[in-house]
Amino acid sequence: MESWLDIPAQSDFSLINIPFGVITHANAGASGRRVAVAIGDKALDLAVFSASQGFSYLPAIQPYLHVFHEPTLNAFASLGRPIHRLVREYLQKVFLKNGPYRELLQDNRELRSVSLIKLTSVQNYLPMHIGDYTDFYVGKHHAYNVGVLFRGPATALQPNYAHLPVGYHGRASSIVVSGTSVRRPWGQILDADNAPIYHPSKRLDIELELGAFLCKGNPLGTPVSLAEAEDFLFGYVLLNDWSARDIQAWEYVPLGPFIAKNFASTVSAWVVLADALEPFRTEGIPNEVECLSYLKSDVNKAMFDINLEISLHPNGTASEAVISHSNSRNMLWSFPQMLTHHTVGGCPMNAGDLIGSGTISGPKSGTEGSLLELTNGGTKPFQASGVERRFLEDGDEVVLRGWCIDSNGHRLGFGECKGQILSAWVQGVTLE
Amino acid sequence: MESWLDIPAQSDFSLINIPFGVITHANAGASGRRVAVAIGDKALDLAVFSASQGFSYLPAIQPYLHVFHEPTLNAFASLGRPIHRLVREYLQKVFLKNGPYRELLQDNRELRSVSLIKLTSVQNYLPMHIGDYTDFYVGKHHAYNVGVLFRGPATALQPNYAHLPVGYHGRASSIVVSGTSVRRPWGQILDADNAPIYHPSKRLDIELELGAFLCKGNPLGTPVSLAEAEDFLFGYVLLNDWSARDIQAWEYVPLGPFIAKNFASTVSAWVVLADALEPFRTEGIPNEVECLSYLKSDVNKAMFDINLEISLHPNGTASEAVISHSNSRNMLWSFPQMLTHHTVGGCPMNAGDLIGSGTISGPKSGTEGSLLELTNGGTKPFQASGVERRFLEDGDEVVLRGWCIDSNGHRLGFGECKGQILSAWVQGVTLE
Repeated sequence: MESWLDIPAQSDFSLINIPFGVITHANAGASGRRVAVAIGDKALDLAVFSASQGFSYLPAIQPYLHVFHEPTLNAFASLGRPIHRLVREYLQKVFLKNGPYRELLQDNRELRSVSLIKLTSVQNYLPMHIGDYTDFYVGKHHAYNVGVLFRGPATALQPNYAHLPVGYHGRASSIVVSGTSVRRPWGQILDADNAPIYHPSKRLDIELELGAFLCKGNPLGTPVSLAEAEDFLFGYVLLNDWSARDIQAWEYVPLGPFIAKNFASTVSAWVVLADALEPFRTEGIPNEVECLSYLKSDVNKAMFDINLEISLHPNGTASEAVISHSNSRNMLWSFPQMLTHHTVGGCPMNAGDLIGSGTISGPKSGTEGSLLELTNGGTKPFQASGVERRFLEDGDEVVLRGWCIDSNGHRLGFGECKGQILSAWVQGVTLE
Repeated sequence: MESWLDIPAQSDFSLINIPFGVITHANAGASGRRVAVAIGDKALDLAVFSASQGFSYLPAIQPYLHVFHEPTLNAFASLGRPIHRLVREYLQKVFLKNGPYRELLQDNRELRSVSLIKLTSVQNYLPMHIGDYTDFYVGKHHAYNVGVLFRGPATALQPNYAHLPVGYHGRASSIVVSGTSVRRPWGQILDADNAPIYHPSKRLDIELELGAFLCKGNPLGTPVSLAEAEDFLFGYVLLNDWSARDIQAWEYVPLGPFIAKNFASTVSAWVVLADALEPFRTEGIPNEVECLSYLKSDVNKAMFDINLEISLHPNGTASEAVISHSNSRNMLWSFPQMLTHHTVGGCPMNAGDLIGSGTISGPKSGTEGSLLELTNGGTKPFQASGVERRFLEDGDEVVLRGWCIDSNGHRLGFGECKGQILSAWVQGVTLE
């Protein structure tokens, strides 16, 4: 499979990917946000492409072309996985060198010039309207590591951990797209005498996660079985669930994290469709207990083999440095299991809802998904680009990356999930 | 203040109230949901009223009349509290016997006949589109009672409890309007040997709460100060945060309640505007610790004196019985304090967001806001309508009520917050 587009071998957005996002660009005019796919170093504006009969040879999408003119992917997602599959495979053929649809774009210089935009010239937006956001905790190594730090090794993993995908409701309104700066949160933290003070967080952290967007809903009171769950999974993004560890440690009992998490969560801009990840299925962490019936899966390979890394560009330094390597196979529960558990009591899901995996740490040193783990609770600093860090400082920029390599050596990646830390808010001062 | 409408003295929807809701009715035609106010045993359809020049004498609302044709109150709420005040006071004058605007409705039989609809003939809907829902835990007596049951008296209240309004993110998608039936959730509960089993909840409970809808948002990264917080509070409803105690006890460590809560939360249909509650301000529970600066209030009376009650109509019995009386003054933190704490780290709020108080129990027997407390963790059954209950059984109907009485003996109430328990979902069987 070769494209007529010049796609570098190291591109995340190869012909085997075709991720979907929401963009504007200088030529978009007043009509604003629209749907696009990323291919190599370009975005194909699907509003322009579809308006120029780009989908002529795909009858199934004809009644739904309006979805590409929407300011989010929700309408496209709601068409369902069979349609996503058709559209993705069609676009692969459009990009294929001397493929069956070469007349549409390869041989149509005029349409190429108005529909293919350099990624450096597009503005990305949050790809979906997120009704509800739920974050799970299925990275077992992370759960263990953090449990040790918060409660000691004896009760690091709670008795429920191996029996159900532990999760909690997050804040949908503070989810931002990659590139959005993140302001250091104020909150209550404990001083040296364990008295609470009102102060900006001193232990600002990251969480390396995978997120899944849903493309389908279920009615209130009607659970989604594990057999049905795959149909609900639209696609995947990288997710940085920024966390203020000092605020979290003080506030989290008995109802869970709140201010420590709700100041921002960042997602990568391009949604990798569920189908694109099919070739990268793998096994997860074996579970020592037998699942209850509703969570029992006969799918052997329910996880994905996605390489994950955290890169830090410390404030004032010349370059970024990779500080951790992980892999999304380090999950105890799959996204279908998370979804099925989420709805077991009848909770209604909607297209656009976001489900996070929780932090995905590997089993050994150098594979931690958070600074809390990497620094053993802030006690062991690390070096990056020549400077020392325990937690994030103002001006630091964090980039999460994720990619798969198929058996032919082809790369599929998620693009960047990036954010820079701004100094804490000052009352009465407009900082940005 | 007397109305030309025949408003019974015991009506929740008196002239001092004027709550807002969303309705349809037989005469609404194809245009569907619209905004209304409740008055006595009627709803005034504001889509019809405004289209018939009902707001002629209120110039300030003229540019915004479209808000009454919306399917939620979000657009009306977003106009801000000064406009809510003008509209509510204007409508009070419209309903006032021989008032200044008597020509508009009192003397306009034709408009009366098409705009005033019996409440028994209207269908109510969720009054707002809820972006995010947060439930707090500021009912101190409840937090103590439940803490004793879950952890014993020594650690019943966590060290953070008196320092900050403890809260957690809830599930927005499962919030339903009063009258919606609630299906008993399946989930993981522990059997007699403390092994988890997949089973419908056996300890289905209620939580008596007050909810506040917001009418204003703040940008990401910019906290809302306590001085600004009142401007964000649109109005109040009763909230039943249905809870599955057996699911909760097993799942809630370390990240808080999840499946135990996300199967349904019920709100009353009519939003009592913040202004309408002003005459009912009172003091809350004194706090033994000094607040940190951002939570320190110079408002003496930050709570409301709202009588609250739980009524249960057990399945198969002839009548409902009041099983608990409480009062919303039993709160340690006010709604402005909850909102300010919610945003202290920069979390963005939006018009339509719902904030729950948490269960509001009183200090003594007979004032419990949940069955868990009323039955001492299910160990002491109670009697209602001649039958015994520990937790809710299928077919049971719960009604929450709330009302204030002013110094003139006038009543302002919230209407009912009602729901009936349906039997647990059976796979492959459509039960409703």
